[in-house]
Amino acid sequence: MSVVRVDLNVSVDGVGIPGDWTPDDPFGKDWTTLTKAFAATRTFRERVLGETEGRGTTGIDDKYAKASFEGVGAEIMGAGMFGLHLHRDDPDWRGWWGAEPPFRCPVFVLTHEERPDLEMEGGTTFHFLSAEPAEVLERAREAAGDEDVRIGGGLDVVRTFAKERLIDRLHIAIAPYVLGDGERLWDGLRGFEEGYTVSGEVAESGTIHLTYSRRA
Amino acid sequence: MSVVRVDLNVSVDGVGIPGDWTPDDPFGKDWTTLTKAFAATRTFRERVLGETEGRGTTGIDDKYAKASFEGVGAEIMGAGMFGLHLHRDDPDWRGWWGAEPPFRCPVFVLTHEERPDLEMEGGTTFHFLSAEPAEVLERAREAAGDEDVRIGGGLDVVRTFAKERLIDRLHIAIAPYVLGDGERLWDGLRGFEEGYTVSGEVAESGTIHLTYSRRA
Repeated sequence: MSVVRVDLNVSVDGVGIPGDWTPDDPFGKDWTTLTKAFAATRTFRERVLGETEGRGTTGIDDKYAKASFEGVGAEIMGAGMFGLHLHRDDPDWRGWWGAEPPFRCPVFVLTHEERPDLEMEGGTTFHFLSAEPAEVLERAREAAGDEDVRIGGGLDVVRTFAKERLIDRLHIAIAPYVLGDGERLWDGLRGFEEGYTVSGEVAESGTIHLTYSRRA
Repeated sequence: MSVVRVDLNVSVDGVGIPGDWTPDDPFGKDWTTLTKAFAATRTFRERVLGETEGRGTTGIDDKYAKASFEGVGAEIMGAGMFGLHLHRDDPDWRGWWGAEPPFRCPVFVLTHEERPDLEMEGGTTFHFLSAEPAEVLERAREAAGDEDVRIGGGLDVVRTFAKERLIDRLHIAIAPYVLGDGERLWDGLRGFEEGYTVSGEVAESGTIHLTYSRRA
């Protein structure tokens, strides 16, 4: 069955977007820390970096990395994740995901200023929508067909969909680092777990993979 | 080897003391949620509630509950954990741990107003100390001999000891609930993980047991 799902990296103190980013360094040092285990996986190195040498970890972290890309028929992301907040005035901006973005499916970018569709290499097409979450989800579901819709981020977008109870499966990779400063996944989501079952396992890296699945 | 250790329950959003407590209900409803898996263990029911019927869970949660009591030669707690903040003017206050507290060892209570020692049933003696963390720890180490010193809480006491790098092993049981409001374990502890290795496992209840152990 087609589901709406999310995969996120958060620190053990709940930070999903570290506070040390700047326009010049949109990810920052703490982002590297937060995503270290994910970035070390074979799936990330092949799918995102385009490596072909078969390097990277192949344990539990990789199992989740792989699953996060599999069976996704459409992706939803916020304007920030496409870099629009920094490139609002540049009509030629094509995102910071490279010429061949790792999504390989239709991607719906939430924005207040719509733009023409952007067809990239490798199967990714960006669509820019100014609409309510439920409407965007409807469009994404149609595009995904029998496959899943993934909400890629940022955190604000995930929280909005979570508050509207639109998420069927939330997977978080909890990295055992205390970051302190930054945007927290769970802010405003008290009671999120109601209606979900929880399962989890701990990877070799010390990363905890926790999955909230909506009860049937 | 004798170590200084801590066992805590925190929510997935890092809350260790929920915000819904009142003087009349010093734990509150969210505390019950937070400690549900721990309170369901056979160890808790026998050791804390005094049950003898062999009830309670005996899985991974119980393994940690059992370990949290084993090999503890002395305990350190804040005034709040002894209930002193609510009973400051009552010289006969004997804590809210019952006539036979579950500690069964010397317990050092941090307070600005010292009191005479309190010898309870079952091997627990409360000592009231007005001293710096390192000094209190020294006293507790002496009392513990070859056994461990456990820092029982509250969160403020744990954070103080953590900041002074006095903790050898921190075990947190992360309950998969989003509580939102309350006192957070990790506030002010950015980088706590430095110098520690991390291991973890997920219990049948969905509780994640994460242990930070100081590198030798």
